[in-house]
Amino acid sequence: MEFGEIIKELRYFVAEREWQQFHSPENLAKSISIEAAELLELFQWGDPNDDSEVSDELADVLTYCLLLADRYGLEPTEIIQNKLAKTRSKYPIEKARGRSDKYDRL
Amino acid sequence: MEFGEIIKELRYFVAEREWQQFHSPENLAKSISIEAAELLELFQWGDPNDDSEVSDELADVLTYCLLLADRYGLEPTEIIQNKLAKTRSKYPIEKARGRSDKYDRL
Amino acid sequence: MEFGEIIKELRYFVAEREWQQFHSPENLAKSISIEAAELLELFQWGDPNDDSEVSDELADVLTYCLLLADRYGLEPTEIIQNKLAKTRSKYPIEKARGRSDKYDRL
Amino acid sequence: MEFGEIIKELRYFVAEREWQQFHSPENLAKSISIEAAELLELFQWGDPNDDSEVSDELADVLTYCLLLADRYGLEPTEIIQNKLAKTRSKYPIEKARGRSDKYDRL
Repeated sequence: MEFGEIIKELRYFVAEREWQQFHSPENLAKSISIEAAELLELFQWGDPNDDSEVSDELADVLTYCLLLADRYGLEPTEIIQNKLAKTRSKYPIEKARGRSDKYDRL
Repeated sequence: MEFGEIIKELRYFVAEREWQQFHSPENLAKSISIEAAELLELFQWGDPNDDSEVSDELADVLTYCLLLADRYGLEPTEIIQNKLAKTRSKYPIEKARGRSDKYDRL
Repeated sequence: MEFGEIIKELRYFVAEREWQQFHSPENLAKSISIEAAELLELFQWGDPNDDSEVSDELADVLTYCLLLADRYGLEPTEIIQNKLAKTRSKYPIEKARGRSDKYDRL
Repeated sequence: MEFGEIIKELRYFVAEREWQQFHSPENLAKSISIEAAELLELFQWGDPNDDSEVSDELADVLTYCLLLADRYGLEPTEIIQNKLAKTRSKYPIEKARGRSDKYDRL
């Protein structure tokens, strides 16, 4: 499914419950962090007991990300590509290959 | 752009730099939390100075989410829909309308 | 140094810069998450390059924790002990020994 | 209570349950982020329903912070003071007074 279609489903879901009033950009940003930590919790002491839990927690992070993108009129795959272009210059292949160092340490 | 296309670009970007070795599911989960907090930082003391910064930080969160989904063979829009079905039952419209309470307080 | 003394230094530091206006409980809670992620970032791809960076990032998390505790009139060591009492009942030694499972899986 | 005393209680609590094996610095860093997000969750859609919940969640963040400090042989009030000295230079009163901007924007 295209992101344009899933966002319509999400908008409808939110509107049915009159939840837009709670979805300020700040509340959505907080929600992304909160859900990201619930995903991280599956890895707190080692690998997850159950890989299927990863699916649901990751879905929650993605859901709030798409709602925030929509709030700002941003298209997810487009902003990913724009950022990727910047990351390519910060991490040129010849310098970055096989290294996990941050760009200012290359 | 469809998810299937953007993930190919991301896989190629990672492979060119021989970064797959660092992309354990746990490291990707940590990265999602780390980037989520950089996004949240734009809202630390109030609204962002510059809305364009939201685009880049949100792109970082989405990028790691797509890489983690790919690692587990999950399709993002599919897992969002699966989770949405569960959320619909937890938050029936008649009970949840206009309320921000968690499902166990409805 | 006792926590009661360090909090006086922190209050003075904040007051000198007229920063109390930004320190709503919500902004302090966001700040704790933001700094926690900067600490986590040192472990993003493996162990930290430099252990001394852990000291500064951990200090940032602790600083915001103490400011939030102070905002609510809470004494840090006291609330830790109160929570520890609850955790003792959730994780009785005979059941929890050597296990990382959450209490509802013991 | 001094830090030195509460950390003894925490060490004993951990040792009784043979949990030191799970407390690598990385796992403790993850735990701090996870608990910080549970604290933030109280502020997800507005102010907390119940201020007493802040006490328990904040205690969890502080607990893991003290365990990580102990793991590195760091004294919490000391590292806070060291970092405060650095922050004083980054945010001189005459420039920083009444402003929430980051130091590179002063």
